[in-house]
Amino acid sequence: MRTYLDCIPCFFRQALQAARISGADLEIQKEVLYNLSQLVPDFSYDTSPVEMGRIIYTMVSKATGKKDPYKEIKEESNRLALKIYPELKKKVRESDNPLLTAVMLAIKGNLIDFNLKDSQEISSEIDRIASHNFDLGAICSNKHFNYQYFYQYLLKSKYILYLADNAGEVVFDRILIEQLVDDYKKNILYVVKGKPALNNALVDDAIYCGINNIAKVISCGADCPGVLLEECSSEFMRLFEEAEMIISKGQGNYEALSEESSPIFFLLIAKCPVIAKHIGCGIGDFILQNKSLKLEIDSSGEANKGKEKENISG
Amino acid sequence: MRTYLDCIPCFFRQALQAARISGADLEIQKEVLYNLSQLVPDFSYDTSPVEMGRIIYTMVSKATGKKDPYKEIKEESNRLALKIYPELKKKVRESDNPLLTAVMLAIKGNLIDFNLKDSQEISSEIDRIASHNFDLGAICSNKHFNYQYFYQYLLKSKYILYLADNAGEVVFDRILIEQLVDDYKKNILYVVKGKPALNNALVDDAIYCGINNIAKVISCGADCPGVLLEECSSEFMRLFEEAEMIISKGQGNYEALSEESSPIFFLLIAKCPVIAKHIGCGIGDFILQNKSLKLEIDSSGEANKGKEKENISG
Repeated sequence: MRTYLDCIPCFFRQALQAARISGADLEIQKEVLYNLSQLVPDFSYDTSPVEMGRIIYTMVSKATGKKDPYKEIKEESNRLALKIYPELKKKVRESDNPLLTAVMLAIKGNLIDFNLKDSQEISSEIDRIASHNFDLGAICSNKHFNYQYFYQYLLKSKYILYLADNAGEVVFDRILIEQLVDDYKKNILYVVKGKPALNNALVDDAIYCGINNIAKVISCGADCPGVLLEECSSEFMRLFEEAEMIISKGQGNYEALSEESSPIFFLLIAKCPVIAKHIGCGIGDFILQNKSLKLEIDSSGEANKGKEKENISG
Repeated sequence: MRTYLDCIPCFFRQALQAARISGADLEIQKEVLYNLSQLVPDFSYDTSPVEMGRIIYTMVSKATGKKDPYKEIKEESNRLALKIYPELKKKVRESDNPLLTAVMLAIKGNLIDFNLKDSQEISSEIDRIASHNFDLGAICSNKHFNYQYFYQYLLKSKYILYLADNAGEVVFDRILIEQLVDDYKKNILYVVKGKPALNNALVDDAIYCGINNIAKVISCGADCPGVLLEECSSEFMRLFEEAEMIISKGQGNYEALSEESSPIFFLLIAKCPVIAKHIGCGIGDFILQNKSLKLEIDSSGEANKGKEKENISG
């Protein structure tokens, strides 16, 4: 997804928030906004917004001298999400459709994002997620929630590349990955970012949340808040190109990969109006979408892969 | 109220929206954002955000060649609000406390703002306002809703300066002004902006909505989306300084006048997080606040005026 003019106000909001989370004083906060304003005239709208996310993050990091401003927030997110892990497992176990419920929880975990400023906000968001009951009927009838495609494609894929999004959310990913490993015997490669990028999960977060016990944890090598392929390591790129199936979590990865023709299933909640417009959905919608494959599900339940580039407005 | 760093992202959002409403193409929209970005380093945080509102508005007007981009939106707002005028009057007539209900409607009309982009949005907002029933108990128990102060001060004031906010909202002002004139025999000076400023009401809007039949309509002489005193005419300033009581509608007028020690009662809905923080209230709260007077209401119900500068954080 390219950058839209509507992203500009949001970049300023993100920069200010990142500066504040880094503990920057008023003068440094101003400096960050000034520096960002100087980039506006030359900014390319052909690149993904996550590229600008990286620039903003680097700028804040330089101005404040803090390499990983979201470290504490990430640790708190992991800790609080792990506390409700047994509750999440129970939800899946008691569900009529454990895989679908695990998918829903993995998407719902996407609500833990960089807009949550402190422990209290994270805690109430996680509590809200845990206590919320899904209206599965309504969600599954949404045209951007292609669970049947996802399910059919899953059946025929052995190795799955799972692109992580945020810390805390990792615990919700674990719930889904455990279903994929235990019930469907899949092999999962769990991909985190290579260096700090907002509250995106790093290797330490994946390990802390116990992903390494059920999947192989690797890094994409890049430090954008989304897997921007031109910034990734060649090792990751080989895995990406060979992947039978890719599960991509969150808005940042959607922004980075929405135009790729790989077998990617995007799992996210559309929180940003620009992304919602790009998808053609409403704000707050649960998205399970594949943009490049046309799956023909035959009577035996097998999915056949066919390329069809979707025409996207926005 | 001075400008906060949080206003910066919002200025970009406002500029983009104003450019689009003016019919600017993508290149002009970019140009407006670029021009605005060049102002950021030199922007003074000591001035009110409405000063920047004026700068943005002038910039968009120059770039698009449209002097009054919100003209059609304003006309549509007036037309649609007038359609529900009989319904609003009925609400007041049937109420146990007609004045309080009229005050509430005047505040509620503040939801018609420049964020409404087209006829459909204006129409559904106005329908929502008309169909909504107030929880008077909850609103009156809010510490920022000083209706008793307002009422006592009203009883002892003969002439009232009423500072208008947006087109459409004018019809809701008319409901309150009719109560003040008919039931309380007050003389009202209804103050609109001197030149186009976002969707702020001008003389034509006041006349179209019938204000001139019950009040004298005058202009403040300025073109900011808030009555910024240093930009106002000397004629208006004389009236402002001599006013026994001032009713100030909306966020723009609050931004311009919140630090003044005049007998101003601010009627607004706190829609912006910066303003909500400045007031110390929640987003969406109904505000009826006087910031500079300490009114001692004695047993006879008379309010005595005493100066007390409120200490505002934010």
